[in-house]
Amino acid sequence: MKRVLLKVSYDGAGYHGWQVQPNAITVEGVLNEKLSELTGESIEVIGASRTDAGVHALGNVAVFDTESTIPPERFSYALNTILPEDISVAESFEVPPGFHPRKTDTEKTYEYTILNTKFPVPGRRGYTWHVKVPLDIDKMRSAASVLIGPHDFRGFCSSKTQAESTVRTIYSINVTKHEDEIKIVVCGDGFLYNMVRIIAGTLASAGGLGKVTVTDIEKALRTGDRTLAGLTAPPQGLCLVDIWYPELEEIYPESENCGSDF
Amino acid sequence: MKRVLLKVSYDGAGYHGWQVQPNAITVEGVLNEKLSELTGESIEVIGASRTDAGVHALGNVAVFDTESTIPPERFSYALNTILPEDISVAESFEVPPGFHPRKTDTEKTYEYTILNTKFPVPGRRGYTWHVKVPLDIDKMRSAASVLIGPHDFRGFCSSKTQAESTVRTIYSINVTKHEDEIKIVVCGDGFLYNMVRIIAGTLASAGGLGKVTVTDIEKALRTGDRTLAGLTAPPQGLCLVDIWYPELEEIYPESENCGSDF
Repeated sequence: MKRVLLKVSYDGAGYHGWQVQPNAITVEGVLNEKLSELTGESIEVIGASRTDAGVHALGNVAVFDTESTIPPERFSYALNTILPEDISVAESFEVPPGFHPRKTDTEKTYEYTILNTKFPVPGRRGYTWHVKVPLDIDKMRSAASVLIGPHDFRGFCSSKTQAESTVRTIYSINVTKHEDEIKIVVCGDGFLYNMVRIIAGTLASAGGLGKVTVTDIEKALRTGDRTLAGLTAPPQGLCLVDIWYPELEEIYPESENCGSDF
Repeated sequence: MKRVLLKVSYDGAGYHGWQVQPNAITVEGVLNEKLSELTGESIEVIGASRTDAGVHALGNVAVFDTESTIPPERFSYALNTILPEDISVAESFEVPPGFHPRKTDTEKTYEYTILNTKFPVPGRRGYTWHVKVPLDIDKMRSAASVLIGPHDFRGFCSSKTQAESTVRTIYSINVTKHEDEIKIVVCGDGFLYNMVRIIAGTLASAGGLGKVTVTDIEKALRTGDRTLAGLTAPPQGLCLVDIWYPELEEIYPESENCGSDF
């Protein structure tokens, strides 16, 4: 029996999110079906991040156990021949039997993209949040700086959050602008339900879309009052870029570390 | 009677190209329909570039004549409320009555995007050409340099080309790589049928996908032998970025000039 890890990319537009649901097509559901087809076993993957409907991924992670003789490194090739075009496996390799992608220390990197133009740009509508008010990048950066570090983020998550603790550490938030696109790259040890989308909405508000101030953000962190932060930005602007496990560094050196010098 | 210019963006995936066709949905057809609806007149636009099925645009150009009382600058706002989500009008303004978008000196900028990864990336498949062989950017740049300047490009166009002359001037070709994406930005005074896609295919071949050499490209330019250049790259990687009319500089100063110091 081997435990195999998959790095999974997908276009979220066609799926009701990651997690298996009755009567809905999900990324996890498709992976289970294709892996079971490939191995002749009844496979149920364990996913690292249960992304929402419409959210994209470059590097979500799933593991599964198999008796198959397919070499772990070959699963990516074998799966990519039978997966639909909007799901792709970028890497596959063996991990220790006890490795659990949600119960292991991690660094996750998300990217949120805002298209800051007067009118929507048709070719970007599925992958960006269109904001027509011109945003002030410097104000967005000031707002972002307040969020860095370990904080109780209960004011920055959906009321549907079921996590036991709402304390998370954000290692870095980079706000950059290239032509009409503003990218918010957030790296941290984990994120609560809707947390990255609320951060994106809060920074957009601070940048000119709304009236959130640095003081409001500090107060939201202190009091946990969700109404002080900004709106929840829409899902299609969000992409789970990378999940990094320090524990796997030896066997997976090419993964990107987001740099937690914090 | 006023002549109004529209700068048109679209996601080419949903259209059978620009030009009106019987029994097929085209960008030009949709614009004619929506402009006629808006003005109560029977409008037929004149387009600058008849992009192929699947090709995208940020700044294609169309003009039309109208007696409407809608101010020319307001057509973009009015159209964007009734156009489908995958077509958008970025700008509209009045131009001189005789202005013809295909019979006026111009500089056109196209961008071709190659996704150079081992496996396709689902979120990018509609907007890139996936090439899994690692490409050598320096070799692509060397190949590109041969194409700069005025040349007879009959070896770099589809046999369906109907142009009277096949001489065109390329002002610049910039090949850049950012992470896994290679962008080829081509600026010139005009392009023959499929010419940018053949240039992209030729540079990819020179970069390692095929065996085209700088000598082959020089010979293709000299002899017009289409078989010496590379394959025609697929449409979804191509985007018409901008069309610039020096004649309109006075009334349209914010348009980008691609810099024809040639």
